[in-house]
Amino acid sequence: MKIAIDAMGGDNAPEAIVKGVLAARDAFSDMEFILYGDQAQIKPLVSNIERIEIQHTDEVIAGDDEPVRSVRRKKQASMVLAAQAVKDHHADAFFSCGNTGAVLACGIFVIGRIKGIERPGLMPTLPTVATDDGFNLIDAGANASSKPNHLYQYAKMGIYYAQDVRKIKQPRVGLLNNGTEYDKGDDLHKEAYQLLKDDPDINFIGNVEATNILEGPADVVVSDGFTGNAVLKTIEGTAGALMKVIKHSLLNSGMLSKLGAAMSKSAFAAVKDKFDTSKYGGAVLLGVAAPVVKSHGASDDRAVYYALTQIHDMVNKQTVQHVIDYFSKEKNS
Amino acid sequence: MKIAIDAMGGDNAPEAIVKGVLAARDAFSDMEFILYGDQAQIKPLVSNIERIEIQHTDEVIAGDDEPVRSVRRKKQASMVLAAQAVKDHHADAFFSCGNTGAVLACGIFVIGRIKGIERPGLMPTLPTVATDDGFNLIDAGANASSKPNHLYQYAKMGIYYAQDVRKIKQPRVGLLNNGTEYDKGDDLHKEAYQLLKDDPDINFIGNVEATNILEGPADVVVSDGFTGNAVLKTIEGTAGALMKVIKHSLLNSGMLSKLGAAMSKSAFAAVKDKFDTSKYGGAVLLGVAAPVVKSHGASDDRAVYYALTQIHDMVNKQTVQHVIDYFSKEKNS
Repeated sequence: MKIAIDAMGGDNAPEAIVKGVLAARDAFSDMEFILYGDQAQIKPLVSNIERIEIQHTDEVIAGDDEPVRSVRRKKQASMVLAAQAVKDHHADAFFSCGNTGAVLACGIFVIGRIKGIERPGLMPTLPTVATDDGFNLIDAGANASSKPNHLYQYAKMGIYYAQDVRKIKQPRVGLLNNGTEYDKGDDLHKEAYQLLKDDPDINFIGNVEATNILEGPADVVVSDGFTGNAVLKTIEGTAGALMKVIKHSLLNSGMLSKLGAAMSKSAFAAVKDKFDTSKYGGAVLLGVAAPVVKSHGASDDRAVYYALTQIHDMVNKQTVQHVIDYFSKEKNS
Repeated sequence: MKIAIDAMGGDNAPEAIVKGVLAARDAFSDMEFILYGDQAQIKPLVSNIERIEIQHTDEVIAGDDEPVRSVRRKKQASMVLAAQAVKDHHADAFFSCGNTGAVLACGIFVIGRIKGIERPGLMPTLPTVATDDGFNLIDAGANASSKPNHLYQYAKMGIYYAQDVRKIKQPRVGLLNNGTEYDKGDDLHKEAYQLLKDDPDINFIGNVEATNILEGPADVVVSDGFTGNAVLKTIEGTAGALMKVIKHSLLNSGMLSKLGAAMSKSAFAAVKDKFDTSKYGGAVLLGVAAPVVKSHGASDDRAVYYALTQIHDMVNKQTVQHVIDYFSKEKNS
């Protein structure tokens, strides 16, 4: 399999990207890579070019570029070239740590939607408290407004991913709603509830609330993109704020606390590790014609390596093909 | 001023409720109370009945009762009687730690909406990381679906509260959206943005994201009720999950960590205090004809006392009257 890599996206590009690619190349003998970006910066980082091709380009999409416009205009940007390579069947999957909106635009407008999918959804894997399983949240923000059938399609796609990559036979699907009772929510969520409930192939556990999604009541949490985006950002923001308050408090509650904090270092490292979602890979844009994975802008080489492991799984297990097959049958049935 | 109290609502009723009322009675010489609930349980808790009246009733609304139905049917429930007293002008404000949905139903259907207000909104005060100011989130879940004008009205009401109770002259108002750029969001949020921006009396700072609302970019964060509810629950859920992981980690990372944790106790107490929002009072249902305050089901007497302090402020500053005056002018203009 060949993976098209935006080598210039993210805060630590191209170093972290290239290092992560080298690690994946060494780990998986069936993986090849095309790195798109500034050859002068990339080449010195690649001592062994086995299964690695570098495609030079000067153009990049910046973090603050307007996503759709920049993808349309910057045809030579590293991210756009990587997406175009997938579109042209020169590569099997796409990876970037760059501008999230631009990655979505590359996936939807360059690589293209799967026939029958109304709206591709962005799906990160988030941590669970008691286990290391994590859970998937879809849509985490690819779409600002949604219809019931979009949520239903998110569920179907999330299930294929959970089965193929997370190896869960019958993923538990929950609908993120404002209460657990079946009649909760606005019309969108009430109708989505019915669609999910009426499909005997979905292991639907009903509504779940944001209060306890980190406890892992569901393997796949389905949400409209606006709310999913807010929930994802609230988790990040709250965890960050709390850690900041704890740190401040430990350093400002006297010598004893300070010393205590130093002694508890390994415990805090374990906490940090728990909430570090990079071990699950990046966020997947499901519903487009190839695996499209976007990792955090701050990703280090380890995070890039995990995302490539995830892509390796998705390509090998043919997750996208499963979605294509299902929705082409749907259409013909 | 006279406050109607649901003495039977919440996990610690009636003890915590009565204790909190006694503390408020002793602190504010202008406050009187009517306690609705089981006299046999309440009376022994009140040694000094100065400015306290007890109205006996056997009926209660339970935490798992269906809100609207139970308010309609249980006419003698402590919560419903307290709301009815406000409706009948026997009391100036309503307080309960009971079933949130039932409190909303009591406020909207018993006490009644203010003329001109399309949808009352539920507004808690949430913590901010760097200061003790906190911020208001409205609507945190009174309504599952919203229109642009609802969000605009939430902002106007939230501003009166922030001015009167939090003593902020020109409260900064932010719109919770899926990005900070002006053109972000679905139609609802785009139109609400325009309404907020076009009102010269609103100190509108634009869109805010859930990632950093705990940093306090705005004094009043306006949200549709579905998203606001999810954000509120995500903050609670994430903070709870993180503290659980930290506790587990400190106790299971060896003796040194365990000892360190014990030494850092005062620092963790400070963290807990930071995220304890009861010091700000309860969540206010804005848009109904009198102050309606709902505190957490797990409230202790201290939390009840703070909520009554908040009610004392709202009644004295005539926050509800400000809203009534503004929206009656609106209608005539």
